[in-house]
Amino acid sequence: MTTIKDVARLAGVSVATVSRAMNNSGYVGAESRRKIEVAIAELNFYPNEVARSLYQKKSKFVGLLLPDISNPFFPLLAKGVEDKMNQMGYQLILGNVQENMEKEKEYLKTFAQNNVAGVLSAINGGINKLGGIPFVMLDRVADEEEYGVHSNDFQGGQLAATAIAERNPHEIVVLVGPRNVPGSLERLRGIEEVLHARKRTYQLLETSSFQFDATKETTSELFARFPKVDSVIASNDVHALAILQEALRRGIKIPEELQIIGYDDIPFSKMLFPSLATISQPAYEIGYQGAELLCDRIEDNYIKEKMIQLPVKLEVRESLRKKEIE
Amino acid sequence: MTTIKDVARLAGVSVATVSRAMNNSGYVGAESRRKIEVAIAELNFYPNEVARSLYQKKSKFVGLLLPDISNPFFPLLAKGVEDKMNQMGYQLILGNVQENMEKEKEYLKTFAQNNVAGVLSAINGGINKLGGIPFVMLDRVADEEEYGVHSNDFQGGQLAATAIAERNPHEIVVLVGPRNVPGSLERLRGIEEVLHARKRTYQLLETSSFQFDATKETTSELFARFPKVDSVIASNDVHALAILQEALRRGIKIPEELQIIGYDDIPFSKMLFPSLATISQPAYEIGYQGAELLCDRIEDNYIKEKMIQLPVKLEVRESLRKKEIE
Repeated sequence: MTTIKDVARLAGVSVATVSRAMNNSGYVGAESRRKIEVAIAELNFYPNEVARSLYQKKSKFVGLLLPDISNPFFPLLAKGVEDKMNQMGYQLILGNVQENMEKEKEYLKTFAQNNVAGVLSAINGGINKLGGIPFVMLDRVADEEEYGVHSNDFQGGQLAATAIAERNPHEIVVLVGPRNVPGSLERLRGIEEVLHARKRTYQLLETSSFQFDATKETTSELFARFPKVDSVIASNDVHALAILQEALRRGIKIPEELQIIGYDDIPFSKMLFPSLATISQPAYEIGYQGAELLCDRIEDNYIKEKMIQLPVKLEVRESLRKKEIE
Repeated sequence: MTTIKDVARLAGVSVATVSRAMNNSGYVGAESRRKIEVAIAELNFYPNEVARSLYQKKSKFVGLLLPDISNPFFPLLAKGVEDKMNQMGYQLILGNVQENMEKEKEYLKTFAQNNVAGVLSAINGGINKLGGIPFVMLDRVADEEEYGVHSNDFQGGQLAATAIAERNPHEIVVLVGPRNVPGSLERLRGIEEVLHARKRTYQLLETSSFQFDATKETTSELFARFPKVDSVIASNDVHALAILQEALRRGIKIPEELQIIGYDDIPFSKMLFPSLATISQPAYEIGYQGAELLCDRIEDNYIKEKMIQLPVKLEVRESLRKKEIE
């Protein structure tokens, strides 16, 4: 393999000079620079990224922390991140944390050891501890964070509650996502504002996790505690789909006897019959714009917006009843 | 940050000696080694992985190539890979190729530039070109490959066909996965062997892709070309679910008027109503054992089995009719 030493030898300059030239750091005379360029072209030299990373003290790696890759929302978000990062020449180191704080810490340590250029995190909280490494939060963005991309969860809550309130609900159950996930509370705030304004009563069902594995428990609890429920505002699509399918299994008619709205718009929601009404979050866009923001931070570009909030959209589908004529 | 220089200074030896001691390469006297160990403990020094990678010419990174992270099968497989690799102290660089040859090539180039210790690939074909880097194929393993973990697709085809043949099929349609994916042909061989032996006629519907996005097209084509179909052997669960849901939408009774069996056993298949009968592939195990095999290659351990084939299992669920009494 061609190394920087070969380039230095052919150009007749020192290795340090080649290094300075390649990294645009420090003075290199015009003549030396020309010789180095000729040598690089002649040897068809492309720098080893590991070596470059040592010189520059930062690598072309970016760490990506995800809470649960079995929920299709996160692979979509990861795809947005990946597409942008690849364009910009960065590689992703994957960290699937499964809502496990120990795993999160371990990943952050390895990211630091590997001189990552930055971190993108869809994990809530606790990440500020990595001194000096720029990071951008995705989807789950706490108030104290400075850089992040997320969707407008307050608006999402409002849209979901309005869709249900306009469709003749008798007994509404609102699934509340984990309270340590910032978006959960924002959505709840949006939902409650609308339901109060429209003088609708409702019950809350707290869920301890957004995880795929937790859906079974939520579903059993819902039907056990609220046998007369006829309208559900769910915390995400995976939970909504589990409830919808369990209702079908019990012979409950969708949407006549039970209407339901999800949150996220994962690809399955549209595919299923009855299709799931939901609040569509731009998962791919969150990932893509988050990656863009992180690149700007890494490269010290001017940043117009540190905290980007993307709009959400109501998708009316077969799991909702017809709107009342008021 | 503590560096190898600080360790050398405190131990009173040269940086080169510390490096030799840490990498177990070359001679280091017993007394020097003791001093170095004391200094490392005193300074609480952990080596920078980038620096270590330069000394050792291989990093603690492993590349992972996946064809489609929007199909839940692959996140599951990735989770198995990740769990094992983390145990062994390796980090994953993610490459989501989306069946795009150009993207595959680019990833392989970056993997090489980053001195990856090895590559795990669930992409079919074309990967042998990375000189010297050990790799292990996952799920999609061509005949000419040396190292891989996949499930027994011939057996899977046999099980699926037997399940259908025993349940009074009148018009069977077999979805054939992309012919360039090695497992597709093995499954077809298993299916055809059983259907011929049982003197069942069937029609083939070729699909050009396993991708999530392709399901809509497959579904329309199926119902347009085979309006009397009453039994479907699908190429994967994502396609099977799309067909099942479209059948429900058209008012076709499942399983009385149409029975269907999938392949993979993604988490949604069990959750939906009617639940999808399928051939369960051990996606997590494929990932986990593939990672284990790659670690053994990287570390030059003795390898008992270069090509591991894992058994599959029939999951009888609501999308299948009752077995005939013969």
